[in-house]
Order: sequence, then C-alpha cells, then structure tokens
Amino acid sequence: MDIRKKSLEKHYEWKGKICIKPNAEVSTMEDLALAYTPGVAEPCLEIQKNPSLSYELTRRWNTVAVITDGTAILGLGDIGPVAGMPVMEGKCLLFKQFADIDAVPICVNSKNTDEIVRTIQLISGSFGGINLEDISAPRCFEIEKQLIERCDIPVFHDDQHGTAIIACAAVHNALKLVGKKLSEVQITISGAGSAGTAIGSLLSEFGATNIIYVDKFGIICDGDESLSPIMGELAKKTNPHRIKGSLKDAVCGSDLFIGVSAPGILTEEMVKTMNYDPIIFAMANPTPEIMPDLAKKAGAAIVGTGRSDYPNQINNVLAFPGIFRGALDCRASKINTEMKKAASQALAMLVGDELSQDYIIPSPFDKRVSPAIAKAVIEAAKRTGVAGKKN
Amino acid sequence: MDIRKKSLEKHYEWKGKICIKPNAEVSTMEDLALAYTPGVAEPCLEIQKNPSLSYELTRRWNTVAVITDGTAILGLGDIGPVAGMPVMEGKCLLFKQFADIDAVPICVNSKNTDEIVRTIQLISGSFGGINLEDISAPRCFEIEKQLIERCDIPVFHDDQHGTAIIACAAVHNALKLVGKKLSEVQITISGAGSAGTAIGSLLSEFGATNIIYVDKFGIICDGDESLSPIMGELAKKTNPHRIKGSLKDAVCGSDLFIGVSAPGILTEEMVKTMNYDPIIFAMANPTPEIMPDLAKKAGAAIVGTGRSDYPNQINNVLAFPGIFRGALDCRASKINTEMKKAASQALAMLVGDELSQDYIIPSPFDKRVSPAIAKAVIEAAKRTGVAGKKN
Repeated sequence: MDIRKKSLEKHYEWKGKICIKPNAEVSTMEDLALAYTPGVAEPCLEIQKNPSLSYELTRRWNTVAVITDGTAILGLGDIGPVAGMPVMEGKCLLFKQFADIDAVPICVNSKNTDEIVRTIQLISGSFGGINLEDISAPRCFEIEKQLIERCDIPVFHDDQHGTAIIACAAVHNALKLVGKKLSEVQITISGAGSAGTAIGSLLSEFGATNIIYVDKFGIICDGDESLSPIMGELAKKTNPHRIKGSLKDAVCGSDLFIGVSAPGILTEEMVKTMNYDPIIFAMANPTPEIMPDLAKKAGAAIVGTGRSDYPNQINNVLAFPGIFRGALDCRASKINTEMKKAASQALAMLVGDELSQDYIIPSPFDKRVSPAIAKAVIEAAKRTGVAGKKN
Repeated sequence: MDIRKKSLEKHYEWKGKICIKPNAEVSTMEDLALAYTPGVAEPCLEIQKNPSLSYELTRRWNTVAVITDGTAILGLGDIGPVAGMPVMEGKCLLFKQFADIDAVPICVNSKNTDEIVRTIQLISGSFGGINLEDISAPRCFEIEKQLIERCDIPVFHDDQHGTAIIACAAVHNALKLVGKKLSEVQITISGAGSAGTAIGSLLSEFGATNIIYVDKFGIICDGDESLSPIMGELAKKTNPHRIKGSLKDAVCGSDLFIGVSAPGILTEEMVKTMNYDPIIFAMANPTPEIMPDLAKKAGAAIVGTGRSDYPNQINNVLAFPGIFRGALDCRASKINTEMKKAASQALAMLVGDELSQDYIIPSPFDKRVSPAIAKAVIEAAKRTGVAGKKN
C-alpha cells in the first residue's frame, strides 16, 4: 500500500502519536496534598525565590515546545496551523524516541511575525527549549532571530540548522572520501530558502569559500538589483567569482551539488560538466533533484538524498534530538554556532573506519547518534560560556 | 513531617509530575515514514480539507491546556508565571489520574488582559479545551469572557466555575438534609472574588433569591457609590433587602454561610445569630473562616471546608476532570450554564441514600464521580446544541 495512505490509516488508529503520563501517584488524600494543594505551595515559593529551580521542581528541564505557524509544512506549503499538527506531533514523538525529551506540539494561528514572536516569548517560561518548525522563509529568519534575543532558553529552527548540521557532516565525510578540501571546492547550492541558506552558512563556518547559490530565478550574484534585501546580503558573501546564469552554469566545474529545491532539476548532462569525483546531495523530498542511479551513471562519486530507500539519507531526525538533549542537559541559554559545528563533527565522526561511498552518514536508528551529539553540544556550550549548568 | 516540606522533597524526586509518552512505535524506517515524513503529509492534507479531523488524526480530542498568568496562585497571590507551574503541573496530573485527559501546563508571562487573551487565542488550535487557572480577579472575568467569544473550544476558569459546581452540589444536599428550600433561604457569601461570585451566580441559576455578599469592606449593597463597576453590578442582582453593615449583619438570620475569604473571620457568636439548623461552608484554605468543631459547638447543623482532614471537603478536583471529559467527548464548543448545572446535580446525586451531615459530597477518590459528571455534561451539551459530536 502507498505509504501516505497507510500513514493516514495509522493516524486514525493512533488518535495522537503522543500522550501524557503521570510521574506521580495520586491515590490517597496524602498524595493529593503532596502533588497538589496544600503541599504544592512550597515548590511554588521556592521557584519564586529562585526561578532557576523551575528546572528542578517541574518538568521544564526535559521539555521542548515544537512550534509552527503552519506556513511551510513539509513540502505542502501553507496549509494552516491546525493541519500542520500531525507533523508537530510526529516531531514530538521523535524527540521522545530518540532523546527521551518531552516535547509539546503547539501551532500558532498567525502569520504576523511580531505577533508570532510575542506569543512564543510569552509562553516560553513553560519550556526548557523551543524548536521552531516548518515556518516559511524569509519570516522564519526574523522570528528565530528575535526569539533568540528575547528568550533565555534555546530557540532553534530545525529546518535551517538541523538540516545544515547533518548536511555538513555528510559533506565532511564525502570530501574525505574523494580527497578534497572544503576550503578549495566549488559548491553549488540549489535552493536559497531556510535549509539552503543555513547549509551554506554552516559550510562557511567550517571553511568553505566558494559557494554559489541558485534559486528559481538563476544564480544569485552580487550586483543583481532584482534581488531582495536578504538575497542581496547572501550574494555579497557568496559566489566570489561572480558567476552568472542558470543552474547549468553554476554546476559546471563544481565539486559538490547540494539540492534543497525541486524534483528532477539536475540533469545527467549537468553532472557530466562537474569537476572530477563530483558529490551530489539531492535532498528535495520526496523526489530528489536527480535520482541516485542517474547521478551515478553520469559520474557522481557519492550521492546522498533525503530518502530512506537509497544509501546516505540526510534525515533531519539525526540532529535535533541530540542537540536539544545536550542543550537541556547543560541548561544552555542558546544553541550557538560552535554547538552546531560540534554536533556536525560528532555526527561525521561516528562513521569512522567504515566510511564508504554508500555510508557517509549514520543511520537514524544508530543508537550512538543522540548521545554523541549531546555530548559534543554540552562541551561546546561550556567552552563558549552558554551552559547554565557547570557539571 | 510538615506536608509542605514533604511536598518540596517529593517535587525534587519527581522532577516534574507528568511526562510525555509515545503512542506510536518508531523503530524501523517504515515506522518513521508512517509517523513522520513522507507519510504524515496525508493526515495533514486531510485536516486541511476538513479541520474537524484534527480531533481524529491528532491528540487534540483528548488534550486540554492548563493556563495561568501566575497572578493568583493558590492563596499565595501574584508569584509569577514560572513559579505557578508546579500547581499547573499538579492540575495536569489530576486531569490524567481522574479523567485520563492529556493536559499541558502553560504559563503566560503577561499581566495585560488583551495580550493574555490574544496569546491563548493564537495557540488554542493546539488543544481541545482550555482550563484557565489561578488568574486574579477581576481580570479573570474579562479574559474568560473574551476567550469564550473568540475560541471554538471550551474555555473554563476552574477557580470560578469548578468551585461553584461543587459548592452548589454541597448546598443542594445540605438543604435537603435540613429540609429547607434554596429559593427561600438567606445565603451569606463571604468573599466576592472569582470563586465567590461564581458560586452566587450558579446558586441563582438554581433558584436562590436571597444572596448577600460581604467583602473586606462590608456588605455589598446596591446604591453604595464606593463600589467598583463589577461590584456595583453584583449589588444590583443580590441583597434584595438592602441589608447594610458588616459580616455580622449579613450572617444574622442567614441559613447558609459560604466562605471563600479569610481564616477565622466567622465567630461562634455570629453562628449563634443564624437561622435554625445553619449550614456553614468555610472554604478558606488552609485555615477556614471558622474551624468545624467551633462551628458545630455554636450550633451548625452541617459544616464543610476545603480540607481533607474534616468531613464534607469541597475539593475542586471533584469537578474539572469530569467536566472536561464530557466536553471533550461530545466535542462541545463551550461549557455553558446548563452543563455546569447538570454537573452539579450529577455530583449531588451520587451521595444518594447515604446522605448524612458528615457526607453531603462524594470523596475525590470516588471513582463514580468523573464518569457521572461527564455523562451529565454530555447530555446537557446535546440538549443545548453545543455538542459538536452527536453520538
């Protein structure tokens, strides 16, 4: 049966993919007096005296909100906040299964940036972290930026940074296999939305110097007056040789293609014009920019996709559970670039000696993944002074 | 050991009184594809086409948000939203234990009525109902009123209506025992905050005609120009004989005293001036308006308190679980007066033939309570046309 139809059936069965369970027993009057009134007054007063005790006396230490406005749900676009809830619940399920984090799905019924920011800010004291999800670009950038400024808990837009962390790990291992250096390769990124720009940004942090963005209007090049302010900024920092034209022109001579764009737009002919041992990450879902077999036939040395039915799946479940596990455990006030880099490196390292063209990134079910990322995130948080808990 | 100290210790042990558990298994690639991408696209699209399916395909059908602004936490007052979370979590625990409802604790960091309303409204699509909790009067009235207008899910301020429903059930049974009629008795309500006004309002719906409110400034009487607009409205609807003075003057000749005010303010001398077979509900917590033994000594026929160490505990855990269970199960768009009245009557009825001066209200651990209230609430919702689900 078609996976989507089967999923619908399962959703009718599940009637919700997560539920609440009690951590405390209430079966006697004394239980009631301890868990609720009058006893509960005491932990309340302790938190009033020292607000950081909310991480000891309530579930906040282990709780993340998964929040969307419903504007960029999967590849479906703006389907509305309530319709996005099955994805948010799914994400909460994965938070639990992969990192034992209690995640709460929340949809915000507004498309106004200021209003979304204010709403999330006002409820942020209920949680230990905020995972923004499936919010459309460019609004997602401003929402995340403002929330990071205003909240004292980590705020992380997974569609940007989670994807970037995993893609960078894959790039690291793929370049190692073909014996090229990140600082020397030409990289074409197809798609300049939230995922694409975050991938390029993190690659630059790792030392990439020659990234060319292509969106549906063509290559993004400094000096092009038709660019939006955000794209204009991006153009300044990328495409150092001011290459102009279409995807074909960008790909020609590139060592690495990263697609977070549209199905089938990378042709075999284009792959043939790439530098020797080209690497192709065609991550459009469910249909990649080029199918792996075609890419291989055209000479690709390594191919990754977003799909589970091909090797080298760039699956976002690899990153967010461990990242929030680490951020919560050291009570980080934010998830900064060093923490993202550390997470990416830890993920790449797990592949170790088994590295091959069909195994550049661990499986989502590799149980080492979340703990390894969490450990790296904690170390980086402590090193950069954003860990609230020192041991 | 003191219950509050012991409660603090238990809170350190629990580290959160509720947690999230998975309803779906994710241990294979297929599981992942069904619970998350790409399969999850299908339930999303179904909800987009028919938003009411969010009650079938996500946990919304069983989920209530327990929301506070932290301004009236227990008897502690305005201790702030984060410090109020142990109470919210406790309430969520009780929702689970007493009615198997998944409740999510949320604190809103604002004291601005409009902002609180807007915040809750914007996230309301994530839940099947909203339980407002420990929000100070008179703001709580406006917040609840506006949310009821703006949300298509039930919004219920438990400190008002939950308390009223239980108090009315206790009044019903107590009057039955002493053989008096609600429409004929004089009732003094000490405390004109959220609980007191809601109790009076529901008693009026049941037919009470002679209610006298007393607050810290004395008897509330129409014509008193020092009254706030809200108290002025209350004065118009109560105290038909325009009695003036202090608590002593109100209680004199009363058949029923209901205290939701301050410890020890009702004296034995005052009780002795009441009508024959006086009924005393002294619900100030933890110290009642008069201790039960003193009230009895002064001639009280029936005494109730908020305490578990005396008979006839007016405990708010008796109402909210069953009320929301009923409202969720019939997918009520609101919790209206008829539903509140039905809940109260169902609660009173459970006592049945065992009715005695020491047993006018069921125990919180009586397992018949939530189902009986839920059933009554569903019937009333259907009768009044607010049930979204017809069977």
